[in-house]
Amino acid sequence: MPSLLIRNIQSLVLAETSPRPFVAGRDMQALPLLEDAYLLIEGGRFHAFGPMAECPERAGETIDAGGGFVFPSWCDSHTHLVFAASREMEFVDRIKGLSYEEIARRGGGILNSARRLRETPEEELLAAALKRIREIEALGTGAVEIKSGYGLTVESEWKMLRVIQRLKEKTTLPIKATFLGAHALPPEYSQHREGYIRLIIDEMLPRIAGEGLADYIDAFCEKGFFTVAETEQLMEAGVRYGMKAKVHVNQFNSLGAIPACVRQGAISVDHLEVVSDEDIESLKGSHTMSTLLPSAPFFLNDAYQPARRLIDAGLPVALATDYNPGSTPSGKMQFVVSLACIKCGMLPEEAIYAATLNGARAMELEQEYGSIAVGKVANFFITPPIPSVAYLPYAFGSDLVERAFLKGEMVVDKR
Amino acid sequence: MPSLLIRNIQSLVLAETSPRPFVAGRDMQALPLLEDAYLLIEGGRFHAFGPMAECPERAGETIDAGGGFVFPSWCDSHTHLVFAASREMEFVDRIKGLSYEEIARRGGGILNSARRLRETPEEELLAAALKRIREIEALGTGAVEIKSGYGLTVESEWKMLRVIQRLKEKTTLPIKATFLGAHALPPEYSQHREGYIRLIIDEMLPRIAGEGLADYIDAFCEKGFFTVAETEQLMEAGVRYGMKAKVHVNQFNSLGAIPACVRQGAISVDHLEVVSDEDIESLKGSHTMSTLLPSAPFFLNDAYQPARRLIDAGLPVALATDYNPGSTPSGKMQFVVSLACIKCGMLPEEAIYAATLNGARAMELEQEYGSIAVGKVANFFITPPIPSVAYLPYAFGSDLVERAFLKGEMVVDKR
Repeated sequence: MPSLLIRNIQSLVLAETSPRPFVAGRDMQALPLLEDAYLLIEGGRFHAFGPMAECPERAGETIDAGGGFVFPSWCDSHTHLVFAASREMEFVDRIKGLSYEEIARRGGGILNSARRLRETPEEELLAAALKRIREIEALGTGAVEIKSGYGLTVESEWKMLRVIQRLKEKTTLPIKATFLGAHALPPEYSQHREGYIRLIIDEMLPRIAGEGLADYIDAFCEKGFFTVAETEQLMEAGVRYGMKAKVHVNQFNSLGAIPACVRQGAISVDHLEVVSDEDIESLKGSHTMSTLLPSAPFFLNDAYQPARRLIDAGLPVALATDYNPGSTPSGKMQFVVSLACIKCGMLPEEAIYAATLNGARAMELEQEYGSIAVGKVANFFITPPIPSVAYLPYAFGSDLVERAFLKGEMVVDKR
Repeated sequence: MPSLLIRNIQSLVLAETSPRPFVAGRDMQALPLLEDAYLLIEGGRFHAFGPMAECPERAGETIDAGGGFVFPSWCDSHTHLVFAASREMEFVDRIKGLSYEEIARRGGGILNSARRLRETPEEELLAAALKRIREIEALGTGAVEIKSGYGLTVESEWKMLRVIQRLKEKTTLPIKATFLGAHALPPEYSQHREGYIRLIIDEMLPRIAGEGLADYIDAFCEKGFFTVAETEQLMEAGVRYGMKAKVHVNQFNSLGAIPACVRQGAISVDHLEVVSDEDIESLKGSHTMSTLLPSAPFFLNDAYQPARRLIDAGLPVALATDYNPGSTPSGKMQFVVSLACIKCGMLPEEAIYAATLNGARAMELEQEYGSIAVGKVANFFITPPIPSVAYLPYAFGSDLVERAFLKGEMVVDKR
């Protein structure tokens, strides 16, 4: 494992001497910044950091950050990046005036992705997904969650989760897998909803759990998709197999799913474009992270997530991409951070916490990732010289991830 | 000058056998695409193109496009990319609730940039602007317009235009210079508006025209900035010195500037967030291009430009970045094309015309740039393999400009 010294860091972002599991409410405004710093990596982990004046003399590999900032890698806790094909023709249909729901009713949307995925061999899915992993690594992502949910049959859900399992073996960045059998009701069950729920619970779950293919269970709780009662049933079944819940809720409507998820001890509730006061009350004091995906309303022209109401209520918030071919064909976390600031009213410091430490927490990876703390895995990126952390969301069209590192090894250098 | 053959182009975009000066209305939906093509460049210009089956055998340099698309370079007809410093702290002020107008009243905004520019030596401005030129070249831009307007004194406006002049000498991509003395009223003239207009007309213009430093004249016609009558006065003065008008109009209000600009034979009217039916009527049959800058309302959270109304009225439309430190800290044309589709309802084909050929027209460069036609300058870019032109705006977080060329020479290769 490599040993590496980074010198002349203009600002070391989110360097913690007493690591915290997550940061909530007003505390999200106070982002630790160590100016004019060094960072020492040993065995793929952060070993020491401090002011340049105290930089150790040593042999071995040294990198000059040249006055750039060092950030902990992004932790993207919500993606669907295993898919068979892009869906830009549905995007054109939306420009022509069709709604996301209308496109779904015509056999587009999730069911389109499901048809394509069923036809695509596992090796081909794996190669395409691996390409997307390399793409997000180059964009500074250092931990990612990936969902199934484009299979919707026992065989195809299993195939997707196998692909995610094989990605885990092939990549340095950590991956968490979420089983999302309840992403959409397959047409063959349109008159027989309970039949599909039973298929998930009685056939998919035991097989997936038996092979250890999923860390979490998810459902798309929304009008036209799955009800709160069905979502509760699925979460309970998942918990019996040791899978905690991470659930799609409140994208278009507040149906009461958030209090239900909190009661089930869900790790996170994700989307939250529409949030009621009752939803916020239920989250207070819980262990459930609120995960916002602002790229989805950006692309779908919906209302953005009310981040300020959540943070001002004292809650922690995470940011993720939602990378998927229908509503968010992008895995760029820096742009999510820009949207969080421009569109959701988050301060740059809040957005950076949300996209790193709180994102790690939403994947139960906060002990190992999400900040620069001695002992954590050395996933980080170096920017070119920039004036402040606020410059990162401000430069919304730029890619400021100039050099990206995983386990202390450089995976991309764009200079 | 180099000779170069590009083989295995999946789709050659906007290849014209009968070049048109611009494309308007419904015609913007019909984008010429030559599938499975070659492209031959001689002496820095497009020399021939056709189906791969007819690809000439030849020695000399050959590039395999590997199934990527070839696009003519972006023509960005509205930027302010000569500036002294970024303004991300005003961005943070806006997140905290201040409006763009309030920030301007506190001495932020354009006057902030003017103070910083006056203090910055010409060499430093030049170096920073040249870096931004290299940045936009790498993003696929092959022609650009740059405005003064952060000087607001005789010396400083002259300094800015000198920098633009020196950029012209240092770069391969063509640059047009616009004199924007009337960008904001300097505080020293706050009680003496006519005095500043006279300074522009009697002192700045003769000197700038005498040295040939500007191609166009511009004014920020808006409440709190310059009136329609003042704008007319400035346009008339510019025309006497051989400078046609390219004018900032209708960003926040429709004041009647568009009919006035059309009467003066303006090359373009730019911004157009707010457009009246009368404005649209006045543009019909004129030679004035409507230039939309959707990154500005994206960043300022304003209403987007009504592109559909303009195009459906039969008008031509151009797209540009507005790259500047206050309202648009981004020079990424691909993202502008995405915004035009996602937010302004433009079809991908319309947005691509607007960002290339019609942009060239808005700089009077359409004879030499803006499409792939025999005899035009060989500024173009190659994408990785993509499924269709619609994929380019759809993949809003990606950078699909993989290899960029100016005068037939590769200036960036990101593979």
